[in-house]
Amino acid sequence: MSDGVAPSGAPEHAHGEAQSAALAEFRAFRERMNAEILGENNLVINRFFALDGRAYERGALDVKTKELLGLVASLVLRCDDCVTYHLVRCAEEGVTRDALFETLSIGLIVGGSIVIPHLRRAVDRWGELERG
Amino acid sequence: MSDGVAPSGAPEHAHGEAQSAALAEFRAFRERMNAEILGENNLVINRFFALDGRAYERGALDVKTKELLGLVASLVLRCDDCVTYHLVRCAEEGVTRDALFETLSIGLIVGGSIVIPHLRRAVDRWGELERG
Amino acid sequence: MSDGVAPSGAPEHAHGEAQSAALAEFRAFRERMNAEILGENNLVINRFFALDGRAYERGALDVKTKELLGLVASLVLRCDDCVTYHLVRCAEEGVTRDALFETLSIGLIVGGSIVIPHLRRAVDRWGELERG
Amino acid sequence: MSDGVAPSGAPEHAHGEAQSAALAEFRAFRERMNAEILGENNLVINRFFALDGRAYERGALDVKTKELLGLVASLVLRCDDCVTYHLVRCAEEGVTRDALFETLSIGLIVGGSIVIPHLRRAVDRWGELERG
Amino acid sequence: MSDGVAPSGAPEHAHGEAQSAALAEFRAFRERMNAEILGENNLVINRFFALDGRAYERGALDVKTKELLGLVASLVLRCDDCVTYHLVRCAEEGVTRDALFETLSIGLIVGGSIVIPHLRRAVDRWGELERG
Amino acid sequence: MSDGVAPSGAPEHAHGEAQSAALAEFRAFRERMNAEILGENNLVINRFFALDGRAYERGALDVKTKELLGLVASLVLRCDDCVTYHLVRCAEEGVTRDALFETLSIGLIVGGSIVIPHLRRAVDRWGELERG
Repeated sequence: MSDGVAPSGAPEHAHGEAQSAALAEFRAFRERMNAEILGENNLVINRFFALDGRAYERGALDVKTKELLGLVASLVLRCDDCVTYHLVRCAEEGVTRDALFETLSIGLIVGGSIVIPHLRRAVDRWGELERG
Repeated sequence: MSDGVAPSGAPEHAHGEAQSAALAEFRAFRERMNAEILGENNLVINRFFALDGRAYERGALDVKTKELLGLVASLVLRCDDCVTYHLVRCAEEGVTRDALFETLSIGLIVGGSIVIPHLRRAVDRWGELERG
Repeated sequence: MSDGVAPSGAPEHAHGEAQSAALAEFRAFRERMNAEILGENNLVINRFFALDGRAYERGALDVKTKELLGLVASLVLRCDDCVTYHLVRCAEEGVTRDALFETLSIGLIVGGSIVIPHLRRAVDRWGELERG
Repeated sequence: MSDGVAPSGAPEHAHGEAQSAALAEFRAFRERMNAEILGENNLVINRFFALDGRAYERGALDVKTKELLGLVASLVLRCDDCVTYHLVRCAEEGVTRDALFETLSIGLIVGGSIVIPHLRRAVDRWGELERG
Repeated sequence: MSDGVAPSGAPEHAHGEAQSAALAEFRAFRERMNAEILGENNLVINRFFALDGRAYERGALDVKTKELLGLVASLVLRCDDCVTYHLVRCAEEGVTRDALFETLSIGLIVGGSIVIPHLRRAVDRWGELERG
Repeated sequence: MSDGVAPSGAPEHAHGEAQSAALAEFRAFRERMNAEILGENNLVINRFFALDGRAYERGALDVKTKELLGLVASLVLRCDDCVTYHLVRCAEEGVTRDALFETLSIGLIVGGSIVIPHLRRAVDRWGELERG
């Protein structure tokens, strides 16, 4: 999950005005707590947050592929907030619904039925992002 | 967790009229999202959901034992929704309170104190099912 | 997590009158469910709960260090309730904000970005405890 | 996993003279280290080991069912040693090959393909136990 | 992990004659145990193995991307055998060393330092595959 | 786990000439693979390895306490290599056998019986370190 700091300059709100209340609350809490955490100036935490952002930058792999990697890793580790973050980023990167479901299907096969509740919430969240 | 599709013909609401609001909401969300997910026609996901239902059918082991197996696996993996699903199924299969607590105790020993918050919610949910 | 039974005689409410509603609700649910679970008289569960309390008592290591150990173990296993419990105990034992953040930073390095959502909630909870 | 102390009086070697070298080594290491650990007289560890043995004793559920519960919990948590221990106990309790594979199938569905390497080793170990 | 059955027709040995002994042993054990497991004719297990193969077939995402997804999921769940399987498939699909390390880096960030021992073994294994 | 790079200047071999073959092999593999990984110059991986070393440096908490935190986190996540690394560091920092067992007991209570095989190997390894 690249979840520490928003990618600089990323137009997080680009795909719609009327975001769901849940997504808006998720973003607000994340931003408030990130500010409080980074303000503590713990060197290890602050560098980790910065490094977390770097891991998803374009390299040999493009950003879209890296976000799919972050998404499937978050799904098999069953972290709803991390899944939500990467869903938002995938939507921003233009991931199609078919590509999304194939990524989720790999997470489901690897992680098993224990992943299903997170899969449901992911698909629900994706619908919110599509309706934007 | 057999959580993809409800067992065909299973009288899910057999043991009481006045279900708790939480259980009702859990069922409604599960049914709505299952329909949306299956409607996407991703072959891997749809076959997985069907297979998930098959795993708990009667075979060399009876259904009750299989549900206890699903319950303890869900508990040590600490998935509340999966635990809730199997609690509902265990209640339908006539699992006694003693058998339930012994199953939970094995999950607690195997998984450790990290399981306790899920154990509390499981026992709370079981009470709702008993009051049905 | 020492979460089964409150440490005997521990003044859990010592550092402030106006606890947050979330913390109060967490305590109330824990106490109600612990009573129901222990009342079931399942030998394994009841002994486990008692043993859980013993693990954090003073020995070669002092109580404060043991609570930090319980906190970091709960954080990397990503159990919010367990983290909350140990944060309450750490506050009672006089853990400083610097020591807390260093403990969290080790959990973050060991457990990775998947820990971040739990880190945010932990810091949010710690603020509530400080405000008492 | 009931792995701390061997069930008192359990005829662990009942089903065959010529055990595999791997199983024999597993048992020897377990016994040697259990003795060293228990000899340390750490109260929490020693009581945990004793309690671990109690969890699989006959109660509302019979011993065979409890061993299957321990097996599936160990499988989804992907602990080869724990799986081996419960396979030995299942063989002692007369679990059939069909019942074993159904239990493994539930672990596979719940835990996903990540479980497969452990499933392979479990089936390999079961063959050793059958050949005795 | 697509680990149940080898992709039909996949030239698994395409990139080199002299495979390492460890890789050869890994393949031999996998093939022997898959044959034994599938020969048991447990419906759920056999269908799962077949489905596992389908998840990595070309769709909206190409096979190479899907193998990277399987690799990162296996890495954060810390399954060495699953990682090895996907490394073999990634090599077959022409994944470059740079793309491999970027995928591993995302697994490291998401999963934390606990991933490092698996990262070391993955890079060691990749070297064997490159030397073919 | 602080496992990326050895603490600068740490006299890793300070407590004995005749180390066990297993420990020596562990160190040799770690050093060889760390060199190969760092030589790849992947920015995210290299910075993570450096940061991993920083997390255990003296701050508000002393080094010994931080190593105990790394140990318990590694134990509940069940990573033998990570446990071994922190055991070596704990021995270097003068952790007593009593303090070690209390730390392990907390990992056991939090993580459950699934931790026991790792506990056995940890105690076995500690004996090797004591015999130096």
